[in-house]
Amino acid sequence: MITKNQIKYIKGLSLKKNRIKEQCFVVEGEKCLAELLNSSFEIVELFALKDWIDENKVIFDKIQAVSFKGLERISNLKSPNKVLAVVKLKKQEILQQESVVTLVLDDINDPGNLGTIIRMCDWFGVKQIICSENSVDIYNPKVVQSTMGSLFRIHIIYANLSTYLAKVTTPIYGAYMDGKNVKDIKINQKVHLVMGNEANGISEKIEKYISKKVVIKNIGGNTESLNVAVATSILLHEFCN
Amino acid sequence: MITKNQIKYIKGLSLKKNRIKEQCFVVEGEKCLAELLNSSFEIVELFALKDWIDENKVIFDKIQAVSFKGLERISNLKSPNKVLAVVKLKKQEILQQESVVTLVLDDINDPGNLGTIIRMCDWFGVKQIICSENSVDIYNPKVVQSTMGSLFRIHIIYANLSTYLAKVTTPIYGAYMDGKNVKDIKINQKVHLVMGNEANGISEKIEKYISKKVVIKNIGGNTESLNVAVATSILLHEFCN
Repeated sequence: MITKNQIKYIKGLSLKKNRIKEQCFVVEGEKCLAELLNSSFEIVELFALKDWIDENKVIFDKIQAVSFKGLERISNLKSPNKVLAVVKLKKQEILQQESVVTLVLDDINDPGNLGTIIRMCDWFGVKQIICSENSVDIYNPKVVQSTMGSLFRIHIIYANLSTYLAKVTTPIYGAYMDGKNVKDIKINQKVHLVMGNEANGISEKIEKYISKKVVIKNIGGNTESLNVAVATSILLHEFCN
Repeated sequence: MITKNQIKYIKGLSLKKNRIKEQCFVVEGEKCLAELLNSSFEIVELFALKDWIDENKVIFDKIQAVSFKGLERISNLKSPNKVLAVVKLKKQEILQQESVVTLVLDDINDPGNLGTIIRMCDWFGVKQIICSENSVDIYNPKVVQSTMGSLFRIHIIYANLSTYLAKVTTPIYGAYMDGKNVKDIKINQKVHLVMGNEANGISEKIEKYISKKVVIKNIGGNTESLNVAVATSILLHEFCN
């Protein structure tokens, strides 16, 4: 039986201020849990349907069997999916650049976009993302769910981008509408790639750090903007291959 | 003043059966309306805030000024945006292939995915999309909104894919997990590109028409699937450039 206090505590973790206060976030569903259990993230509490517990034989003392109704009460999903975990936030530190691209995100606002971008970094082998301090929180439930587990494999840091980029020694590419066609660019060293906000692009104060502007050619010529998650995916496909 | 019957009629158009019966669909918001007014689609009725009417000086006798509260009553959006149009469905016929790629969609289910794909076709100059009969309806309000006006520029047909593909004379590429790396493929003639359903990929009955399998290389190697809208975008970027 889930208590009222537990419901209040878990539902409260959908807000950033509570996640910071409690240093915890929520992960839901079979797919994400499988990835979580394979990661170095620390699970604090686990709530699951009896059949999930029987199937998964997880050895963990803080596991609580719940009914579907109970799961519905604590879930952020429209259709709760068997299992929900409360997980410790992880304080990440900036690592030495390992992969060809380090991705820099300047104020990405939409949780679905950030989730897709994290998933695509996983696909293309990008190990580290630097987010501006105003970017949407990676522990937001919508971000967590849309990464489909990739969140637990990618190193993600929040930082002041000006301070960070001032120290970068690799070429810094930025996505602009008036850049050089990505098809005409050859990447033969490690680089940084900066992607801007959905509505405003890369902010002015960051522009001075960009050494090379890049664009995805607008062949049709009728529409003016690309979704940032799609644009990031295409650029990573070009830069990482 | 919007009548109860008008509200019932317009809200009803969010269901496919009503759209088919009435042969109408709904378009909302300033951006989509601007694109609609530049298209050959026929507007049946227009509901707008007074300031939109004053600003846009649309010459059209079926225009009705509404209050924000009135707009809220007929809107499908969380935040209604100044204007809503009831528009005649357009019966499209298959055209001779004009662009390098004709896109074929095999049971795309998610309205957001279909919307993004239509928008990306507009970006990459793809003129025609053939959807299987079980694909989500392009006149679904979520599809319409997420195309951001590109819907009015792309030729989209629903057809039996087996019948259609049996007559195609160009090479037919299909996205598979075990295909040839798209980076190693050179396109030097017109082609068809088939993308499969979000969960199940390209259906078995369609596979026999695929002459060449193509894949986006999984460099990271940890995650098994790509979002279909992102995958389509990357393949169009490669094929159309």
